[in-house]
Amino acid sequence: MSIQLTAKSLFEVVQDAKITSPRGFTAAGVHSGVKRKSLDLGAIICAVPATAAAVYTTNAFQAPPLKVTQESIGVEGKLKAFVVNSGIANACTGERGLQDAYQMRQKTAELLGIPPHQVGVVSTGVIGEYLPMEKVLNGLERVVNEAETEGGELFAKSILTTDTCTKKVEVSAEIDGKEVKIAGVAKGSGMIHPNMATMLGFVTTDAVIDPNHLQSLLWQTTDETFNMITVDGDCSTNDMVVAMASGLAGNHPLHPQHPDWKKFQSAFSYVCQELAKKIARDGEGATRLIEVKVDGASSVEMARKIAKSIVGSSLVKSAVFGADANWGRILCAAGYGDPIISPDSVDVCLGPVSVVKGGLPAEYDEAAASEVLKQEKVEIYVSLNMGEQKATAWGCDLTYDYVKINASYRT
Amino acid sequence: MSIQLTAKSLFEVVQDAKITSPRGFTAAGVHSGVKRKSLDLGAIICAVPATAAAVYTTNAFQAPPLKVTQESIGVEGKLKAFVVNSGIANACTGERGLQDAYQMRQKTAELLGIPPHQVGVVSTGVIGEYLPMEKVLNGLERVVNEAETEGGELFAKSILTTDTCTKKVEVSAEIDGKEVKIAGVAKGSGMIHPNMATMLGFVTTDAVIDPNHLQSLLWQTTDETFNMITVDGDCSTNDMVVAMASGLAGNHPLHPQHPDWKKFQSAFSYVCQELAKKIARDGEGATRLIEVKVDGASSVEMARKIAKSIVGSSLVKSAVFGADANWGRILCAAGYGDPIISPDSVDVCLGPVSVVKGGLPAEYDEAAASEVLKQEKVEIYVSLNMGEQKATAWGCDLTYDYVKINASYRT
Repeated sequence: MSIQLTAKSLFEVVQDAKITSPRGFTAAGVHSGVKRKSLDLGAIICAVPATAAAVYTTNAFQAPPLKVTQESIGVEGKLKAFVVNSGIANACTGERGLQDAYQMRQKTAELLGIPPHQVGVVSTGVIGEYLPMEKVLNGLERVVNEAETEGGELFAKSILTTDTCTKKVEVSAEIDGKEVKIAGVAKGSGMIHPNMATMLGFVTTDAVIDPNHLQSLLWQTTDETFNMITVDGDCSTNDMVVAMASGLAGNHPLHPQHPDWKKFQSAFSYVCQELAKKIARDGEGATRLIEVKVDGASSVEMARKIAKSIVGSSLVKSAVFGADANWGRILCAAGYGDPIISPDSVDVCLGPVSVVKGGLPAEYDEAAASEVLKQEKVEIYVSLNMGEQKATAWGCDLTYDYVKINASYRT
Repeated sequence: MSIQLTAKSLFEVVQDAKITSPRGFTAAGVHSGVKRKSLDLGAIICAVPATAAAVYTTNAFQAPPLKVTQESIGVEGKLKAFVVNSGIANACTGERGLQDAYQMRQKTAELLGIPPHQVGVVSTGVIGEYLPMEKVLNGLERVVNEAETEGGELFAKSILTTDTCTKKVEVSAEIDGKEVKIAGVAKGSGMIHPNMATMLGFVTTDAVIDPNHLQSLLWQTTDETFNMITVDGDCSTNDMVVAMASGLAGNHPLHPQHPDWKKFQSAFSYVCQELAKKIARDGEGATRLIEVKVDGASSVEMARKIAKSIVGSSLVKSAVFGADANWGRILCAAGYGDPIISPDSVDVCLGPVSVVKGGLPAEYDEAAASEVLKQEKVEIYVSLNMGEQKATAWGCDLTYDYVKINASYRT
C-alpha cells in the first residue's frame, strides 16, 4: 500500500485524535455495573441522522446485538446513535439475549426521542452470560445525558475488555475545498483473527456520502485492514466495524467518480489501517507488532492467505518473542498458507536482512537478524516472485502473558 | 469410533510395545553427532523386502528426504530399510539437501547390499540447515551394524526432537488363524496440525498385504487419526507416516473382501490412533490431552472441521490449561469452524457436565465443570443435532512452557 508514502499530500494526521472531531458527533462513557469497576457502557450520538455502514463477524454464532444493528441499518442506512457495552458479549444467549439487545435499542431511542431503527447496538466481553438489564438501562440514561464533544476519551475507554490502552486515530483532508474529518476508535485484544474477530471499530466522518458508497468503501477497506490482523486465530461472535457519516462538512456527495474520491479513500483507509495495527500491537500479552508483507504473488487472495498464515503461526510468533531468527518457520508457514507456491523462487528478509534467497539460506549476520526481531515493530518481507500481487498482514508475538491472560479470563 | 469398545474381541494390546515385534524387523538408534549429545540417527531394517506405503506433508516446502522416499516407494512399493535422523530437518536446503538425502539412501543401500530404491529416508529438526554428512554417513555404518530385534527402544529415542517421551504401541490379532502383529512408533511435539505436521510415524506389521491395499488403508486411517491432531496449527515440511509389512505372518493376503479385513483394519487404526493421541498429549509444554468429539454433523468433513477448530483454538487451549469452563470459546470456535451450523440446536458437554443445551447456557455446577478440565484427559462433546456424521480430534492445552520452548528452540 502506497498510502503512507503519499499521505502528506492527501491528508493530515491529527495528533490528539477524537471520535467527536467530525462535525455533529458527541460521545460518552460511563460505569453502569456490568463490570466491577471500569467504564462499561458508551455511546456515540450524531446531531443529525448519519449515513451508516457496517461489517459483521462471519462466525455462525453471531451475537444478538449484531442482528439488531443489521436490522436498524437495513431500514434506511442511517443512525443517530450507537450504544456499546463491554464486560458481557450477550452472545449465545438466544431469544432472551435478542430481547435484551432490542431493549437497549428501544431505551436509547426513547431517551433521544428518535425511531429505534436509528440506533445501533453492540456488546463485547464474556460469551454466554445475560446482561444485567436494570443496570444497563439505568446506565443508558446517564450515557445519553452525558454525551458531549469532549466525551471521545470516555467512550474509547468504555468499550475496552482486556485491552491495555485506547486506540484512536484522526485525519483531515480537503475535499471540494472543504475540510473533511475522519476519526476512528477501536477495541480488541484477544480472539482476534481475520474476518472481524472480537474487535470493534467505529469510524466517524462529517463527509457527505450516501450509504451505498460508504458500505462499499467499508467492505473494501476492511478486507485490507481489519481482516488482515490476527492475534490468536480465534474469530469471534461479536465483531463489527461501523462507519457513520454526518454529512455536515458541506462537500459535494462523495462517490468513486468524484475528483477527490482517491483522497477520501486513502484517508479512510489510513484510519482503518492504523486502528487495525493498534489492535494487533495490543494483542493479549504482546510485546511487539509484527508486519508481514508478501509480494510477487499470482493473486491478491494468495498474497493475503500467505501473509496471514505467517503472521498467525504460533511458531513464528514465539520465535519473534524470543528474537530467534528462525526463518524456517516463516517458510513453513508460507508453505501451508498456499501449497502451490514455488519454493525455489522465494526470498525472505527480516527488516533489511536477507535470510532466504531463492528458497535457500542466505549468508547473514545472526546478530543483525536477531536485532530486527527485537524492534517494537518487526518487519518480515516475503517475495514469491511468481506474479504482481501483494498484501500486508499484522499480528503480534506470542508470550507467557497471552497464556496467563487466557488461562483465567473469567476468574 | 467404536474400535475401542470392541477392541478386546478383535485384537490384543501388547504392553511392552516394540517396533521390532512383527516378524522380520530389526532396529537401532545411535548418536552420530547431528545433535550434541542425544541419539540422532535410527534405522528400521526388514529381513525381506517389505510392502511399503507412506503419507506425506502437504506443505509446499516439502523437504528433500520426502522426495527421495517417494521415489523409492514408487519403484515397486517395497522397502528393506528406513533411516531417520533428528536434529536437522534437511528442509529448505535445495539441490544440496536433495543430494544429501540421496547420499543417505545410497550409503544405507551399500551397507546392506540392496538396491537404493529399497531404502526410505526422512529427517526432522531445524529447517534450513545442511546435514553434517560425514557424521551422518559414519553414523549410518554403526546404525546398520547395530540393528537388532531389541533395538526398538533406541530407534524410538533416536527420532525425538522436543518430545519428552518415546511413543510406542503394539497389538496382535488373529488373521486366518495366524498371529499377526502390528507395532508403531512416532515422534512429534511441536509444529503439529492436521495434514501431517512435524510428526513422524512408523508402523510395522508381519501381515501379508499388497502395496495398494496397504496404501489405501494408510490414507484412510491417517485421515481419522494423525490428521485429527493439532498442537499449534503449524503444518510442517517433513511429516510423514510410513507403514511396512514384512508378510512373514503367513496369512492369506489381506484385502477388503478378506473375512478378517475389519479385524486387521481395526487393529491398524488402533495403532495409529494411539500414536496420534500420544503425540497430542506430548505437545510442547502440554499438561493435558484434549479430546473433542463432534456428532450430529451433516457431513464427516463438517464434523472434522469443527472438531479441529475447537481443539486448535488458542483460547480453548488456554482455558483448559487454566481449568476455566469457558464454554463460550468452544461455541465460538465451532462457529468459525463451519459457518453453516445452526446455533440453536447445539449441545456441549464437558465430560459428563452439560454446559450448553440448544445453544443456550445450561444450569451446571461450575466446580464440577472445572474438575473435568483438570483431568489428564479432557473430554469435550459437541452435538450439532443436524445429521448423522461424527469425528474426533485430539490436542493439548496451551501453557507457558509452549512459549518458552518455542521462543528459544534453536538457541
